[in-house]
Amino acid sequence: MSRTWNFNAGPAVLPEEVLEQVKADLPEIGKSGMSVMELSHRGKAYMAIHQEAAANVRTLMGLPDDYAVLFLQGGASTQFAMVPRNLLTDGQTADYVHTGSWASKAIQEAKLVGRVNLAADTSKERPCRIPKLSELKLTSGAAYVHLTSNETIEGTQWMEFPKSDAPLVADMSSDILSRPIDAGRFALIYAGAQKNIGPAGVTLVIIRKDVAARVSERVPKIFRYATHIEEDSLYNTPPCFAIYVVALVTRWLLKQGSLEAIGARNRAKAQRLYGVIDSGFYRPTAAKECRSQMNVTFRLPSEELEMAFIAEAEAQGMVGLKGHRSVGGARASIYNAMPSEGVEALAVFMQEFARRHG
Amino acid sequence: MSRTWNFNAGPAVLPEEVLEQVKADLPEIGKSGMSVMELSHRGKAYMAIHQEAAANVRTLMGLPDDYAVLFLQGGASTQFAMVPRNLLTDGQTADYVHTGSWASKAIQEAKLVGRVNLAADTSKERPCRIPKLSELKLTSGAAYVHLTSNETIEGTQWMEFPKSDAPLVADMSSDILSRPIDAGRFALIYAGAQKNIGPAGVTLVIIRKDVAARVSERVPKIFRYATHIEEDSLYNTPPCFAIYVVALVTRWLLKQGSLEAIGARNRAKAQRLYGVIDSGFYRPTAAKECRSQMNVTFRLPSEELEMAFIAEAEAQGMVGLKGHRSVGGARASIYNAMPSEGVEALAVFMQEFARRHG
Repeated sequence: MSRTWNFNAGPAVLPEEVLEQVKADLPEIGKSGMSVMELSHRGKAYMAIHQEAAANVRTLMGLPDDYAVLFLQGGASTQFAMVPRNLLTDGQTADYVHTGSWASKAIQEAKLVGRVNLAADTSKERPCRIPKLSELKLTSGAAYVHLTSNETIEGTQWMEFPKSDAPLVADMSSDILSRPIDAGRFALIYAGAQKNIGPAGVTLVIIRKDVAARVSERVPKIFRYATHIEEDSLYNTPPCFAIYVVALVTRWLLKQGSLEAIGARNRAKAQRLYGVIDSGFYRPTAAKECRSQMNVTFRLPSEELEMAFIAEAEAQGMVGLKGHRSVGGARASIYNAMPSEGVEALAVFMQEFARRHG
Repeated sequence: MSRTWNFNAGPAVLPEEVLEQVKADLPEIGKSGMSVMELSHRGKAYMAIHQEAAANVRTLMGLPDDYAVLFLQGGASTQFAMVPRNLLTDGQTADYVHTGSWASKAIQEAKLVGRVNLAADTSKERPCRIPKLSELKLTSGAAYVHLTSNETIEGTQWMEFPKSDAPLVADMSSDILSRPIDAGRFALIYAGAQKNIGPAGVTLVIIRKDVAARVSERVPKIFRYATHIEEDSLYNTPPCFAIYVVALVTRWLLKQGSLEAIGARNRAKAQRLYGVIDSGFYRPTAAKECRSQMNVTFRLPSEELEMAFIAEAEAQGMVGLKGHRSVGGARASIYNAMPSEGVEALAVFMQEFARRHG
């Protein structure tokens, strides 16, 4: 097999080592006489996997004891609805920071539940950017403050997080476990797995247990965080296979070292590409101070060149580089599992393409 | 590898052929240069899988054109909440048939939304049974009638379905695609995949499109069937890997023949075990006329013997036979993927155990 350099925005590249382990565990995991997909979710063999996945996340993030680590279903899109239903009680306001496409979806679902204040709105600005902390207009007594730590489409990322009296909630789908963060400053972090930590089909939720207690009894039991905390994500049958892959990916991350080390590697990967972009021909779409280390977005001098760039890259085994239509151009998603070698191959191609067409 | 006979209630046994295909597709599916977990859910390679899974279900069930086939997340437990939120409008009543553990969960979530009428309640009866159609007290003008086609825990199964003016809704999690049914009589069928059609983490929903149109605009967009019909289950990132396994399992089912052929094979498997049970020593827990072909439940003369039975079976490579605590005794789940050889091994063991202890 010749492995493609996969720059897809998500589902995205997984570590080769993880894929080889999944293959080795088929058709039988351990000496169980069955595959991981066939294990009872109440049995010892699966429970060890379930607990390892949560423990690895806890270790990597250095989570305090008053936080629960949950594995739910439905992706960030389901969290957009669950967060306000659990945390936004009658008469309160939730502060949302509108930074682009994903923040927008979170805001739309929250508005169906209660009062939403846009603490800042940079969603229409070009170059794309994250607001400065001093620009945020936070509501006194807000139910919570919601932000999107990395905008996959706009290619922007929060570099520092607001201090707020209200609980801080973050959609970290596209940069979870990619850099060190002070988890204790957040009341709730959620992330679809399919970018940095596993396959589509499982959602990581990290929640400070006290905020889960607010929920109204009118919320369906299945949509209450409290239900899943109480049952350790086994209230209903969990997405066992996806959680197993998360266990393998987080095991692989632990071998890479701390989140500081992982973050440094990701920063170096991103800087390699931004270095090429800043040397001319390419035009960055995100403001310099909030460029994402996960999704490197850029335009070329013309749409024709953009099409040629993407087609030539694909012919050289680099796929998934087309930018989202709302921003245009190209996007290289370089999550945890993208090796430096893949980034280097792209950087060299970009330089060579610029030389030919510049 | 010596493959265990896996009688787990779910997650459950999968066809060996499917597991071998999953293994062969790692670390690369086709000539894509990546695994199925890394494919973009908007790309051609994944779309072919997504569409095959839906088309296979459509073919197997002979679905009319006005039905949509959806692949959602969250299992039947999420459907318990979604069904009333989509179909039970203000002031209406929903009829639920209470037949046991799973019906009970559906009823609890529906009561959080609106008025529920128990059209019949056999949940406390022993032997466990499904009510006769003549016992059902249906509400005139009901929003819908809900039933659980197979109770995994009680070991009971509906043999014929009610005719009703109201839309008929069924949780078929534990017998979907295991026998022929007249799909056109149902307005909505849902099923967690992890028993008959795939791994945990994907929910099959079959819905007549007109009933999806009822939904209120106040329901979160992610929880509206209409959203997922419109976007062909791609409103958000679907659980791609689980859907891929469903595509493989339904491809395998199509090779087994029609649902008539599959149903006949399942009936023969169940009859082999009920034959042993009816010859004495073992005591059936479900009434004869509604015994499940999927979950064969039975008691032994004492709890000590039950423990010995389960332990000896396990020593002989037959696992997952412990009954649910609410019914006790033993339970053999013999879904589509359980080979006749596994059932025969269990039947022989049961006869031999009865001879020794009878």
